[in-house]
Amino acid sequence: MSRMLEEIRQQPEALARTLGREMPSARRFKKLVEKRRPKLIVLVARGTSDNAALFGRYLLEITTGIPVSLAAPSITTLYHAAVDYREALVVAISQSGESTDTNVVLERARRQGALTLGITNESRSSLAKLAEHVFLVRAGKERSVAATKTYTGQMLILYLVAHALGAPVRLADLERLPAAVEAALRLEPEMEALSERYRFMRHAAVVGRGFNYANAFEFALKLMETCYVVAERFSSADFMHGPIALVEPSFPVFAFAPPGATWPSISQTLQKLHALHAEIAVITDARNTHAGTHATRVIRLPVRLKEELTPIPYVIPAQLLAACLASQKGLNPDHPRTLSKVTLTL
Amino acid sequence: MSRMLEEIRQQPEALARTLGREMPSARRFKKLVEKRRPKLIVLVARGTSDNAALFGRYLLEITTGIPVSLAAPSITTLYHAAVDYREALVVAISQSGESTDTNVVLERARRQGALTLGITNESRSSLAKLAEHVFLVRAGKERSVAATKTYTGQMLILYLVAHALGAPVRLADLERLPAAVEAALRLEPEMEALSERYRFMRHAAVVGRGFNYANAFEFALKLMETCYVVAERFSSADFMHGPIALVEPSFPVFAFAPPGATWPSISQTLQKLHALHAEIAVITDARNTHAGTHATRVIRLPVRLKEELTPIPYVIPAQLLAACLASQKGLNPDHPRTLSKVTLTL
Repeated sequence: MSRMLEEIRQQPEALARTLGREMPSARRFKKLVEKRRPKLIVLVARGTSDNAALFGRYLLEITTGIPVSLAAPSITTLYHAAVDYREALVVAISQSGESTDTNVVLERARRQGALTLGITNESRSSLAKLAEHVFLVRAGKERSVAATKTYTGQMLILYLVAHALGAPVRLADLERLPAAVEAALRLEPEMEALSERYRFMRHAAVVGRGFNYANAFEFALKLMETCYVVAERFSSADFMHGPIALVEPSFPVFAFAPPGATWPSISQTLQKLHALHAEIAVITDARNTHAGTHATRVIRLPVRLKEELTPIPYVIPAQLLAACLASQKGLNPDHPRTLSKVTLTL
Repeated sequence: MSRMLEEIRQQPEALARTLGREMPSARRFKKLVEKRRPKLIVLVARGTSDNAALFGRYLLEITTGIPVSLAAPSITTLYHAAVDYREALVVAISQSGESTDTNVVLERARRQGALTLGITNESRSSLAKLAEHVFLVRAGKERSVAATKTYTGQMLILYLVAHALGAPVRLADLERLPAAVEAALRLEPEMEALSERYRFMRHAAVVGRGFNYANAFEFALKLMETCYVVAERFSSADFMHGPIALVEPSFPVFAFAPPGATWPSISQTLQKLHALHAEIAVITDARNTHAGTHATRVIRLPVRLKEELTPIPYVIPAQLLAACLASQKGLNPDHPRTLSKVTLTL
């Protein structure tokens, strides 16, 4: 069994541990931002952590009303521009805490007087030392190059950040997430069987929107790095503005389709893709009974969740499918060619 | 000949006209922002206009130091969140001026008290009426579904916006752009010949960074919508954080490789891709004599420009190559399957 699959299975426990142990940190952070409420939130990250940041972008902007910007690190590291972050909360997210460019952006922001927050899996990392406040993802060492448990851990912490900023995120809801992930993990045999269908898939598109937009990026990244599938990722709206032209009969599309605010938009896109004879697999749950209408395959989580709580459980079948597909293709997801666990870029 | 190719050729004239006629608007806008200097710039757009926005993101943040955020329209249109844009400059970019979600975001921001700016090719559009200040892209009617001249026109106007905000963007430099585009257009026979090489290309990756990052998105979008190529787009740094695993021998990569701040990063990526036996085509100019070292093909513009001025001329060979490749593939770039000129999404 791959370490990736092992680490996917560790997520209920990892999430419960993170939530339990990081509550004191959340309370301290709440006091900090009550005194210094930011006017802007800047998220900085790379790779899978950047996908968690993309989730944070939606979560924080929707639930706090504070504008959010995803940092472009090169603006600091290559162009040496002094962007005015004095009234900002700058959040760096990194599994290893050693992502060079992410750390440089955080460090310069702190020197400018910004409130800085680090989210990392490594308590003794550079990031943990550089940031004024630190949240630890308590996922345990992540050994697979393909990040899974740190992604969901980072997302969980972003809910705590939103909560500390006064967002209507209920802790009781968060406490239900490990069980929802446990339920999602029961899809493993189904994902194992389904992976055979995609044995020879060379390219695909993944669609998501709003809270699940980041999951589209993360699933596509997993397909690229562990299965070497050329995977596009779009919001259902952006897909319609051009890229949908490349869809021909049998083109494989994966869609995150929770019930809620984004469903009408996702549904419209699925209808159009269906008319184009695309091959559609939707990831949904027990609440969205319409999601299967235009789909070739329905991956249905045995849970009933509010839309804003779907992202963590919904990524589980995607992680499982990527891990199983890598095995089907005879690849080792723990050691993708060309990659190492910590990537240093400026 | 396709309208797309016709409209590509119109760009020197269109850019010169836009620059000449929009100077009074730029002066009025300068006075406006001298009185109400924004603390945040929010850019909102879809499709090709969103790629222009991505260019604006780098240009404005680097040259003005004001933080920039690319809006996620669904946060307003689907989640109905009230993001605090009171101290922001909100810039909507739309060729037609009728992009529903873009207009909704701008309208709500204006009601909140934000300074609003519209950039459109259509003077009588909804956007031109909704925004407090308007810049017109004077490209003439764009008939091809594949946008080209409005993209470069939007980028040109973003330089004027930066200039009005006090950035060190010299108008004399902007006045040299139409001639640089004219020079780039002389690459047409070379792009016509080169397009044959890619006749059977099914997927590709486009790499860019900093000022040319948006061009990577725009070239990829053109390849998707006019040539039905599954085209990925990455910054050279993001590419290293996972996606590079999918590169196998002969995998086609296109890279924007100007001289300047991003060259060391792009160069490192090209070196790695070369070692993986990827097929690399670089777009560069007379100043970056090293750019060809790891490339299979070099597309060299006969110009010498400062890096911040390269994006408009550099996209020209990419547009030409997409238009020629569509013809090679027997496709009509003016009417891609599934698409219409104005896309309405919420």
